[in-house]
Amino acid sequence: MKAGKVVLALDGMGGDRAPDVVVNGADIARERYPDTTYLLFGDPDKLKPLVDRRKGLAQAVEIVPAADAVSADDKPSFALRRRRQSSMWLACQAAAEGRADTVVSAGNTGALLAISMFAMRMVEGAHRPALASFVPTMRGETVMLDLGANLECDADNLAEFAVMGSVFAQVLLGLDTPKVGLLNVGSEELKGHEELRQAAGWLRRPGGPVSFHGFVEGNDIGAGVVDVVVTDGFTGNVALKAIEGTAKLYTSWVRDVFRTSSFAKIGYVFSAGAWRKMRERVDPRRYNGGVFLGLDGVCVKSHGGTDDLGFAYAIGVARDMVRYEYRNKLVDGLATLRQVISTPDTPGEAVQASGGTA
Amino acid sequence: MKAGKVVLALDGMGGDRAPDVVVNGADIARERYPDTTYLLFGDPDKLKPLVDRRKGLAQAVEIVPAADAVSADDKPSFALRRRRQSSMWLACQAAAEGRADTVVSAGNTGALLAISMFAMRMVEGAHRPALASFVPTMRGETVMLDLGANLECDADNLAEFAVMGSVFAQVLLGLDTPKVGLLNVGSEELKGHEELRQAAGWLRRPGGPVSFHGFVEGNDIGAGVVDVVVTDGFTGNVALKAIEGTAKLYTSWVRDVFRTSSFAKIGYVFSAGAWRKMRERVDPRRYNGGVFLGLDGVCVKSHGGTDDLGFAYAIGVARDMVRYEYRNKLVDGLATLRQVISTPDTPGEAVQASGGTA
Repeated sequence: MKAGKVVLALDGMGGDRAPDVVVNGADIARERYPDTTYLLFGDPDKLKPLVDRRKGLAQAVEIVPAADAVSADDKPSFALRRRRQSSMWLACQAAAEGRADTVVSAGNTGALLAISMFAMRMVEGAHRPALASFVPTMRGETVMLDLGANLECDADNLAEFAVMGSVFAQVLLGLDTPKVGLLNVGSEELKGHEELRQAAGWLRRPGGPVSFHGFVEGNDIGAGVVDVVVTDGFTGNVALKAIEGTAKLYTSWVRDVFRTSSFAKIGYVFSAGAWRKMRERVDPRRYNGGVFLGLDGVCVKSHGGTDDLGFAYAIGVARDMVRYEYRNKLVDGLATLRQVISTPDTPGEAVQASGGTA
Repeated sequence: MKAGKVVLALDGMGGDRAPDVVVNGADIARERYPDTTYLLFGDPDKLKPLVDRRKGLAQAVEIVPAADAVSADDKPSFALRRRRQSSMWLACQAAAEGRADTVVSAGNTGALLAISMFAMRMVEGAHRPALASFVPTMRGETVMLDLGANLECDADNLAEFAVMGSVFAQVLLGLDTPKVGLLNVGSEELKGHEELRQAAGWLRRPGGPVSFHGFVEGNDIGAGVVDVVVTDGFTGNVALKAIEGTAKLYTSWVRDVFRTSSFAKIGYVFSAGAWRKMRERVDPRRYNGGVFLGLDGVCVKSHGGTDDLGFAYAIGVARDMVRYEYRNKLVDGLATLRQVISTPDTPGEAVQASGGTA
């Protein structure tokens, strides 16, 4: 566990409701985590009055002027080259240079990925960053990655993502040996892409860095069969959004039920308390805070449209990753992975591979 | 519209609860569709007593002996070569040779795909079959394909799937010009696989065979943004199962709500009628009946674990495809597609392509 304060660089101007949500979110997080202080990047004329309005917040926050801001429409390449003085760029730079331990932004996702990659570089042993997040399941929460940073992935990428996701689940969910699954199609005759089989072969080797469950299918995500679901960015993005779309559909159907008749409306009155609990369970703010894993540092992306509480959750994710030393654990895990991959197959393993089931 | 009776070949021995479910499903379907008759393939000793038990069913059903059956564990290649006398094989053959108009089976999916492809061949203009099904949405039902027949697809495959799905939606949902979307990731910086851009380019050309909406994202499936969602078999399989998993998760959460307290239980009593309607809405049997599109014939795959009503739905899908001449409409659509693809780009289109937005 890291000693001392955790310093968070905040992109004060990123997100649909910035800077209010950023300042208010920091205020909530500061009360929750007294071990945090903040570098708040942006326009001081806008930020200072907001900070001063919150009692005691000014002591935990240092406002750092940034003359520019990344807009939601900026292409990543444009933001990377032309927004050097933006709150996002300067916040990432502070984290990269060690003035802060981590950066949190609700701004443009593509720009944040490009800028944080450029500023922080990849951590030792990682080749591509992955976007990870939590999804709700029957058994609590599962980490899913990649959610869109890489449309095509080779076996190396997938195996590295497995390590990133496993370490993230250890740190955030407090699990000693999170179960990791590779997302695949299940039918016997459809054996999945070659890169999936290769990655699975590596992850199954003894002495590996993760507890590998094997392949999982789309329905296993919601069932909570594993703690970490690994896939390429195209599939992960589609699956996550399909899950979100289904959740919305069900929510609207449940709403319809109680509108059906007067009896049903009375039914709602009686069960209203129970529904509140359900709403908390599915509260999207609880799943706020996508993270770019694999960088040499911690960068958390909040949803652009989140509210104060959602932004505070994202800060909490960043704080936990620093506090519980995500980065060092990841470096160790990736080194173990590389060692396992480079070990030649034992004869026993070769026999198993050729004699295995389809 | 096809005149006369529709003759359905049924795989009497396929599925977890065969032959009971097949016979009972046929009995329900026969009452619903008096224009149907059945060739029922399987073991006469098992089938005949079941058929005789149902009043009037024997007049609509001819039992055709089959000495063998495909098992759920059979690999497709094994079933294709070694199960020539199975109920599945003989039923497909009857449909291929014109003794039946269509085949319905609740048996092994991979085996059914292999056998139906071999027996029926591809329809003129189609290169690969696609597995399609309905998914529930805010606006009713949407057709999604491919759900797993092809793990990797090129632009040609995707464009053909768009035509297959569009014609299927016309025939089954009664839509004149179903809106078709290509599943993709949405972020500006992630422009999607090359084959997706190529297929979209073709489908956008004037005079094409489908009403092309453009790209859609995972959440647009549940929102019902389009009537047909086209994707490769890997992504489609994962997305469909992720949707099913989320539906299960929500159902269990709603159940939990009413167990929370006595008040909530009373609430359930008042709203029970409304929930019945909701259960009907999400009834998986209503979405039973995946179809292999692109074959030179109609082959419908029922879920292996379905019940009588589910199997009757699958029969209804097959019957509608024959009755409303799915096959001929598909041949026309594919011919139009080929013509549009082979037309050289007009100068206007070339300018648009190079100057288009990202």
